[in-house]
Amino acid sequence: MIQSVAILGLGLMGGSLGLALKRGGAKVTVHGFTRSRERGELALRRGALDHFHADAHEAVRDADVVICCAPILAIPGQVASVIDALKAGALITDVGSTKSVIQNSCRELMTGREVYFVGSHPIAGSEQQGMEAARADLYEGAMTVITPDDLVPEEMTARARELWERCGSCVVSMSPEEHDKVLAATSHLPHMMSSLLAATIARPGGRDDLACFCGTGYRGTTRLATGGTDIWLDILKTNREAITGELKAFEEKLRSLIEKLEAGSFSDIEAVLEEGKNARRAFDDYGNQSNSEA
Amino acid sequence: MIQSVAILGLGLMGGSLGLALKRGGAKVTVHGFTRSRERGELALRRGALDHFHADAHEAVRDADVVICCAPILAIPGQVASVIDALKAGALITDVGSTKSVIQNSCRELMTGREVYFVGSHPIAGSEQQGMEAARADLYEGAMTVITPDDLVPEEMTARARELWERCGSCVVSMSPEEHDKVLAATSHLPHMMSSLLAATIARPGGRDDLACFCGTGYRGTTRLATGGTDIWLDILKTNREAITGELKAFEEKLRSLIEKLEAGSFSDIEAVLEEGKNARRAFDDYGNQSNSEA
Repeated sequence: MIQSVAILGLGLMGGSLGLALKRGGAKVTVHGFTRSRERGELALRRGALDHFHADAHEAVRDADVVICCAPILAIPGQVASVIDALKAGALITDVGSTKSVIQNSCRELMTGREVYFVGSHPIAGSEQQGMEAARADLYEGAMTVITPDDLVPEEMTARARELWERCGSCVVSMSPEEHDKVLAATSHLPHMMSSLLAATIARPGGRDDLACFCGTGYRGTTRLATGGTDIWLDILKTNREAITGELKAFEEKLRSLIEKLEAGSFSDIEAVLEEGKNARRAFDDYGNQSNSEA
Repeated sequence: MIQSVAILGLGLMGGSLGLALKRGGAKVTVHGFTRSRERGELALRRGALDHFHADAHEAVRDADVVICCAPILAIPGQVASVIDALKAGALITDVGSTKSVIQNSCRELMTGREVYFVGSHPIAGSEQQGMEAARADLYEGAMTVITPDDLVPEEMTARARELWERCGSCVVSMSPEEHDKVLAATSHLPHMMSSLLAATIARPGGRDDLACFCGTGYRGTTRLATGGTDIWLDILKTNREAITGELKAFEEKLRSLIEKLEAGSFSDIEAVLEEGKNARRAFDDYGNQSNSEA
């Protein structure tokens, strides 16, 4: 049973984690660290924390679980900065959107120490950012992937699972490499397509009132383009190979469609439209099935 | 002033047009034609029509405006089938999503007759189809493009404008070719990207539980893939050149992104992400400006 946690970084993800853990008066003690005193006090006022610390070492001292809520490339540094302050048997995890790079760095940091790292990626978020936007239900019903490696005792994997289940999340375990491959398809590819689409539609030479002729289709397909550039650069840097593979798979389908259109092969094009429709419907069916099982 | 209209085809578009015109007890008489008696009776019960006709000639006899609400490739045939039953000085229009092919066919049909064709495309719709899904506010605040040619008297263009303004729509006039070019970018390109994206993500070889790892980003970007295949085949057949041009513009951006990723040129990739973000934000700003002006 987790009795004490420390959240390092109190933005949307960290703040929501605190709110979820304290919801309904659960008996876990939540320590929080952020460099901004103002943000720490907001987290206290909103009931996301029991204790705010301006010093990360103080925040983690008693924690059974430490959760690093920093940008992907900052996580290994955050882990390194507190590792000597952790109590023996502590678990450290994170909320980064890619896992292999973080896992490789942290695995090395743990060597010879009695503390353990299990990566986490709660597949949840919002266009809004910051402690102001934090919500107790952000992780409710969301999938969280955990990526334990073979050096981690079963007990630590169970503790990571308990953390996210307490927040209402469904937990699935896989290797960091598998996680990054799956997310390259389901999340990183759609994001890049959304960016390219917004840029293509608005490219110079068009009417300056194009926005008048953009309906809900445009809005839905380009919404992701407004995502944080820094976050996405980190994702691209740490999952370059898998994302490139997905982009090339898309490029191949696009090239094939262009050739069919140029040849006027409309029965082949019909098959393309049906393929997309069936793929999306299978997703909806799967979603409905999962909901009715829950 | 329009006193009598005839709607040919009572699906989502035709049914909603009737509901919009009769809303608030407006003094226009609405005649409707459909081959399905059941659907015609539903339209009467819902107040979308004053008179239901099982014969298209009877429906159009007194109409100042006839609106063809058929699939794109069926519209010229629908126009041809009623043209001899129209009264002199009648206007005929449509709701097709592409305009050049329809315009060229109908222009020929009008030759030597005292009736006039002005194409219309109300940029409105819904995932739902049929008279059951018709709504009086479908066109409210939507943009409608009308595409009068130089043979049409100004009075007829004004009448087409009046029709859509009565339904709460904002009306803009342009050539059929310009319409098809603009919509290839703002509507047809996003649709095809959505289809290809859904198919790429679900391509064979992936996990069979991929849907678990699809969040709101996937949902928003692939939603269009569920659109009606027949409707989209008609759009592709009648706007092939402009759509191919947009697909190639997208392909060029995609190729360039893949090359940047392979080269690890992350400052160039940052520029790609910023370009997409700025394009989408400009759209949002334009929308807010238009709303505050309205």
